[in-house]
Amino acid sequence: MPLENDAVAARVHRYLELVETGTADEVAALFASEATIEDPVGSEVRAGRHDIREFYATFESMTKTTRLISLRACAGQAAFQFEISTEVAEATFATMSPMEVMVFDDDGLIESMRAWWAPDDLTIGPAGD
Amino acid sequence: MPLENDAVAARVHRYLELVETGTADEVAALFASEATIEDPVGSEVRAGRHDIREFYATFESMTKTTRLISLRACAGQAAFQFEISTEVAEATFATMSPMEVMVFDDDGLIESMRAWWAPDDLTIGPAGD
Repeated sequence: MPLENDAVAARVHRYLELVETGTADEVAALFASEATIEDPVGSEVRAGRHDIREFYATFESMTKTTRLISLRACAGQAAFQFEISTEVAEATFATMSPMEVMVFDDDGLIESMRAWWAPDDLTIGPAGD
Repeated sequence: MPLENDAVAARVHRYLELVETGTADEVAALFASEATIEDPVGSEVRAGRHDIREFYATFESMTKTTRLISLRACAGQAAFQFEISTEVAEATFATMSPMEVMVFDDDGLIESMRAWWAPDDLTIGPAGD
């Protein structure tokens, strides 16, 4: 049975929470062992928890906030837009709001994550801008 | 070469315009001949322009409006959220705002469209609500 829509939404919230405050290990643990990520779409696909952990480790020590903007769930999948602000200098944040699609397995682990965004979508400024 | 991001965005705008005001033939003409649609994700995939035309013909005679909420483009693809309001009784509209992913071929035709939404996302009320 695919995950219920409420459970899909809860897992996306948990993912964003851990991207903001968790370790790369904690984020990677949300993914199935053979999971794939393509971020942004068109770039090389990373496969397996080791490579996925490595991807999140890049941002692990950065100060950042995340915020869910909108989410639609069906058939054990989520399509959502979220905002992520990363501190790039003191009190200066790089902010973007990608669209993502996540496919969950029946155990609630992320099987695949794909993110659509372009460098042009990035804005630089004080937090909240 | 994949379509430039601006061209992807222009095609999504054109699609929403034709969903609002065009005929099923006009909408179907935006798709490649072997294109697929999965709307909502998890339902049966429709393949080929004939079946796609049939899908849009269902809504063709309804009074409706569309509005793009947000769009991200990369690698010849668009992920976007839009609102569609359909008149279901006099001055009463059914409104929803699905998330969609469209993949375009190098000629700018839609190769695939997938839409994430659930029946719970539907709201009924006067236009603009």
